[in-house]
Amino acid sequence: MAEVKNKQVIFKNYVEGVPKESDMYISDTATIKLKIPHEEEASLSVLVKNLYLSCDPVMRIRMRKPGDETSSYFTPFAPGSPLSGYGVAKVLDSRHPDFKEGDLVWGTTKWEDFSLITTPESFHKIQHADVPLSYYTGILGMPGMTAYAGFNEVCSPKKGEYVFISAASGAVGQLVGQFAKLLGCYVVGSAGSKEKVELLRNKLKFDEAFNYKEEHDLNAALKRYFPEGIDIYFENVGGNLLDAVLLNMRVHGRIAVCGMISQYNLDRPEGVTNLMCLIYKRIHMQGFTVGDYYHLYPKYLEYILPCIREGRVVYLEDIAEGLENGPAALVGLFSGRNVGKQVVSVSH
Amino acid sequence: MAEVKNKQVIFKNYVEGVPKESDMYISDTATIKLKIPHEEEASLSVLVKNLYLSCDPVMRIRMRKPGDETSSYFTPFAPGSPLSGYGVAKVLDSRHPDFKEGDLVWGTTKWEDFSLITTPESFHKIQHADVPLSYYTGILGMPGMTAYAGFNEVCSPKKGEYVFISAASGAVGQLVGQFAKLLGCYVVGSAGSKEKVELLRNKLKFDEAFNYKEEHDLNAALKRYFPEGIDIYFENVGGNLLDAVLLNMRVHGRIAVCGMISQYNLDRPEGVTNLMCLIYKRIHMQGFTVGDYYHLYPKYLEYILPCIREGRVVYLEDIAEGLENGPAALVGLFSGRNVGKQVVSVSH
Repeated sequence: MAEVKNKQVIFKNYVEGVPKESDMYISDTATIKLKIPHEEEASLSVLVKNLYLSCDPVMRIRMRKPGDETSSYFTPFAPGSPLSGYGVAKVLDSRHPDFKEGDLVWGTTKWEDFSLITTPESFHKIQHADVPLSYYTGILGMPGMTAYAGFNEVCSPKKGEYVFISAASGAVGQLVGQFAKLLGCYVVGSAGSKEKVELLRNKLKFDEAFNYKEEHDLNAALKRYFPEGIDIYFENVGGNLLDAVLLNMRVHGRIAVCGMISQYNLDRPEGVTNLMCLIYKRIHMQGFTVGDYYHLYPKYLEYILPCIREGRVVYLEDIAEGLENGPAALVGLFSGRNVGKQVVSVSH
Repeated sequence: MAEVKNKQVIFKNYVEGVPKESDMYISDTATIKLKIPHEEEASLSVLVKNLYLSCDPVMRIRMRKPGDETSSYFTPFAPGSPLSGYGVAKVLDSRHPDFKEGDLVWGTTKWEDFSLITTPESFHKIQHADVPLSYYTGILGMPGMTAYAGFNEVCSPKKGEYVFISAASGAVGQLVGQFAKLLGCYVVGSAGSKEKVELLRNKLKFDEAFNYKEEHDLNAALKRYFPEGIDIYFENVGGNLLDAVLLNMRVHGRIAVCGMISQYNLDRPEGVTNLMCLIYKRIHMQGFTVGDYYHLYPKYLEYILPCIREGRVVYLEDIAEGLENGPAALVGLFSGRNVGKQVVSVSH
């Protein structure tokens, strides 16, 4: 069988500081046969054509040099190899009993046109294709499960509670806010541009939203929006904002620590000084990763699919066209360039 | 009825930085009648003779100027008035139906020979006087309940888990360690002197103990004692030690935040930089105060009294004799002068 070209986004070398487009490059030299090779006959491999790739903040952590504290939790990328991450793909050939040619799947794949996946156990078969397929990198994929589990399982929310969400227009934050509104909470989000704040207020139906870049005193901003204090903080940002939130939490408040994107590019993270508030206010602060909650995925789909079809939950996506625009899309996460979930479309 | 002299420890003025003996003074000028006055006939007041007073780190927080973040949680002391805090006392006269002359009680009283308590609802009647009465400021009082609730309710401990305790020879820490040993955990404590470390190892039967002042690299020290990592951290100290602990926590670890004594004298607390570990390791960090758990006090007494009587749990006390030595005893908490629970004996 003839080989075809396989365009790839290659990780150049370990990154310190803010990641740049030049930390990756586009390679046009690889080729691939669109059939699982003979030597893989006895394997459980699956060959896929990638359709959408997901840009996730955690990919920055995987750009760190091995040996770092984090590298036992998030496998560092290998310099000279394509990036890997979540994506939506179509099965072209399979040795795995759960997947057959033509299946649509989402799970961990590589940043290239076609991928031979030797451990396809992470793939979920897509059963509902009446919604945009790109949603399986977002609302119907890892970020969706993260928002659902983080809010419902970690925050123990109750109707009427005061909820604050940082990075609120991002892949996860926009969903947490909508889930909290559906439950009957008062919801405020922070984001980094006027456009995002308007989307939070008008399209995502948050009660309030503000641009943290325009607030010189985050403590005062939070007091303005939460005169009664915050019951639930869904943490995506870390650093100074967390410090200000701690001062504004209510007694028995809960903080779900989902991410700290403001800290990922720093050699030494900012110090958080107001942790004594945890004691006075008896605050429950819990870090979590979605991997502990995938058993809830079927239950989540039952909840979210009708919400999407009936328009009760909307989802903002920012789709970059083509692998060659992947590096810019990925590094844009850290300057807040994306509006909504950042996706890279590889093939239609 | 004749009045008697009522020696008092008066709070001089709000404190910044490290508290000094001179932030208080002994007054010999007050007098008191040992009978509830006529104008209190219709009240629920109780007049007590104070026997033991408790020196607790939280009293430093109450020395701060009102208006501080903490003052809505811990009522600041009033300059010119006696300190208040936990103590053991004997009822001399009572208008409250629950208390009568001769009863022994523990609860919130004042730093003076005799106190008229207008809100005796905080008093617990002492039913078991076969143990040292001073224990009701410690193992049988607030610190005991703090250790019991903090360890059992907040840490969800399991047999065989790795437990680290800071300020481990203190009023609370020494109990947490013994409770953890009784459950079958591996227990290591840190303290600030050779003498304390030896007590932890030999008298309190911790598996290991170390002097944090002799460790220039706390991360390395923790790696030495916990090559497999820490499941449970009972936090009494805060600051740099917390930062080092975060690096050494295990996945799904728990941190019970009981106190942060290293931070109470600082205008601006030290920054904690390793909070991202909360995410990777899915750590549950919970602040708590004993006030939320007093409903468990009868259950705790059932557990702890036999332990004391049978010698399965021991309790280290450091008893200062006389109110005039109270200020030195109290400020000694912050230099670690005390060995075990710091008590002031007022009268035998």
